[in-house]
Amino acid sequence: MSVSQYMQQLGVQARAASRAMAKASTEQKNAALAALADRLLANEAALIAANAKDLAAGQENNLDPAMMDRLAITSAGVQAMAEGVRQVAALADPVGQISDGKYLPSGIHLSKMRVPLGVVGIIYESRPNVTVDAAILCLKSGNATILRGGKEALHSNQAIAEIVRASLSEAGLPMDAVQVVNTTDRAAVTALIQDAEHVDVIVPRGGKGLIERISTEARVPVIKHLDGNCHTFIAQDADQEMAVSLVLNAKTRRYGVCNALESLLVHESVAAQVLPKIAAALAPFDVEVRGCDRTRHFIPAANEATEEDYSAEFLGPIMSCRVVDSVEQAIEHINHHGSGHTDAIVTSSIETARVFQRDVDSSSVMVNASTAFADGFEYGLGAEIGISTDKIHARGPVGLEGLTSQKYVVWGQGQTRG
Amino acid sequence: MSVSQYMQQLGVQARAASRAMAKASTEQKNAALAALADRLLANEAALIAANAKDLAAGQENNLDPAMMDRLAITSAGVQAMAEGVRQVAALADPVGQISDGKYLPSGIHLSKMRVPLGVVGIIYESRPNVTVDAAILCLKSGNATILRGGKEALHSNQAIAEIVRASLSEAGLPMDAVQVVNTTDRAAVTALIQDAEHVDVIVPRGGKGLIERISTEARVPVIKHLDGNCHTFIAQDADQEMAVSLVLNAKTRRYGVCNALESLLVHESVAAQVLPKIAAALAPFDVEVRGCDRTRHFIPAANEATEEDYSAEFLGPIMSCRVVDSVEQAIEHINHHGSGHTDAIVTSSIETARVFQRDVDSSSVMVNASTAFADGFEYGLGAEIGISTDKIHARGPVGLEGLTSQKYVVWGQGQTRG
Repeated sequence: MSVSQYMQQLGVQARAASRAMAKASTEQKNAALAALADRLLANEAALIAANAKDLAAGQENNLDPAMMDRLAITSAGVQAMAEGVRQVAALADPVGQISDGKYLPSGIHLSKMRVPLGVVGIIYESRPNVTVDAAILCLKSGNATILRGGKEALHSNQAIAEIVRASLSEAGLPMDAVQVVNTTDRAAVTALIQDAEHVDVIVPRGGKGLIERISTEARVPVIKHLDGNCHTFIAQDADQEMAVSLVLNAKTRRYGVCNALESLLVHESVAAQVLPKIAAALAPFDVEVRGCDRTRHFIPAANEATEEDYSAEFLGPIMSCRVVDSVEQAIEHINHHGSGHTDAIVTSSIETARVFQRDVDSSSVMVNASTAFADGFEYGLGAEIGISTDKIHARGPVGLEGLTSQKYVVWGQGQTRG
Repeated sequence: MSVSQYMQQLGVQARAASRAMAKASTEQKNAALAALADRLLANEAALIAANAKDLAAGQENNLDPAMMDRLAITSAGVQAMAEGVRQVAALADPVGQISDGKYLPSGIHLSKMRVPLGVVGIIYESRPNVTVDAAILCLKSGNATILRGGKEALHSNQAIAEIVRASLSEAGLPMDAVQVVNTTDRAAVTALIQDAEHVDVIVPRGGKGLIERISTEARVPVIKHLDGNCHTFIAQDADQEMAVSLVLNAKTRRYGVCNALESLLVHESVAAQVLPKIAAALAPFDVEVRGCDRTRHFIPAANEATEEDYSAEFLGPIMSCRVVDSVEQAIEHINHHGSGHTDAIVTSSIETARVFQRDVDSSSVMVNASTAFADGFEYGLGAEIGISTDKIHARGPVGLEGLTSQKYVVWGQGQTRG
């Protein structure tokens, strides 16, 4: 069987399974999740053994330490997976929710019913825990899913998939609701993202290169973010202690995450006071500052920032910095250089906050809070399948609701249209 | 200037205008709409004169009568345009609506703010009234729009655009919030649908060929429907008089619309009774029935239906028909052959209605109502920019809300993440 035939078969199976999943009861879906949590714990040894094969291959192929770290499944990791599954089981089921009901002049009654998207294709790199997260979010939201993980994690992903499928079966749900692609051939990705007949949406997770390639080639809608160039703007009237604390948290909490602060903007009237404090706070973390001339006046150790620096997602201990003349200039800078992910202002002025929140065109716009909060768990979604910087469909952290759609339902008593 | 440079320029102007439109007050937008309604009426003669050029060219090029009909602007047409503008002015402004507000365990306050999509590209064929409809829906929802109408309507569209732009200007809004592409070069369409930097969404309106081409080539998200193969299923326990009346209305009210009934399904236990009644009701309309063997047993005049007939959108006095054994078979038929647009059941059984409404995977699923109701006006949206059969973002008739997105807004008091 060719790769494209194989992928076609997965698609047909997923479409059929999605029909059954769309009508599965909440009870049934939760039973599958409970079974999965139990089975993950019961099969810890088997999971770690499968993972050992991937780790050995990774060592042979000289994977970098960060990648090896993301690849590893530990006993604590299995516990965390099971805990995550129980958390998703505890979330409200979005499917079947009815909203916006009303009678219309014709006498028909119109409302919207929340329904699964159908078949969700997930493409990701080496983290096996994404296999669990993606599978359970799709399961709970009544979707079928086709998972295409990184080749480095193939054994781990297949071991997880086997456990997920057994759990589905135990709850009387179709095993094909969760399928893991068993080939590492890149043609499988192309087939998946172009199969508009059997796949309703693609969620790519991984590096910018992967996501750009998928967006360009896809014939199926893609929910994605390319990068997170997050800003914090310190306004004229900011509480400066708060500003320093928010910058420190957003920049140094974790460097490699998409909600990390990458670019600092400071109002010129407070730059002289606040920039040295920020430099002092960042000093123990060896964060390199790349700034404009005015920044470098107040932080002599700062390097010169290029235009590219202002558009960069560093994902490391580097921060660009610019002194601006007004909130309007800050907004313009963010809308021009930013990635539409998450941007924050520190201010005590209602009016400045209002303008910033209205005019910054990003998926999360924050006042007096750390950009690190842009996250499905922190937003109360329970879990997230990813973060979207698109404006279409889901925007910001995407949880169960982002994996659903709404259809109009109409009840009449024989009304005809004039 | 090359076509691609010209389109790039429109994009840059639209993006700049979109920033101003996003912060325009409801009052300002309504003032622009009021000015537009007045100016349309005041410029009736100029509009009709511009339209006369298009009509003359159309006659020279032997446009078919239906197309000439859609192209024509009459005095009544101008009145209707102005009336449509006043109706959109009266609709609630979706921009700035706040929903789902809550405090989270970290103490931050999270909510969603409804915001414009940004720049909307509309590609359509020969109907000049679409120019007004699209412009006013985008204006009211705070978007900038780039309109690319059919070459047959170029003079009409430019005359309308001039009036719209004068009205924007009168209200202190940027004229570039509404731009009409002034070239009929096809390269302009390609440039528009691939300009992801300046265009947020494309709404194509027109024939299936146009929409398929756009979907395939676009690098910008597309809100669309390809066709409307709408079904009505007459269940075992249907009120038969109601069934006949609904079929007659949905099939014969207007043949060329996407919510017209194209395919009838009848439960085998009532086929003998109801099919002859339907044949009799359709007889005065000369509707050709193409059916399965069982259909042809009860409607001897029916022709044999092919598989293609069951998947066809006839847009004319033709209807496919199949006798099925169960509601499940009807659902399977619809999900297989349908286009996900609008499908209806006629039944008196709660349970049959529930199963049909849950399991039919279409943008509108109706019980005991004519598929002709699937329409933005009938659904209370005031107007529609199109109908979407996609599952992503907007589904079904798309009005002002479908032209907006939501961003997360966070208020804190200096919270940092642990």
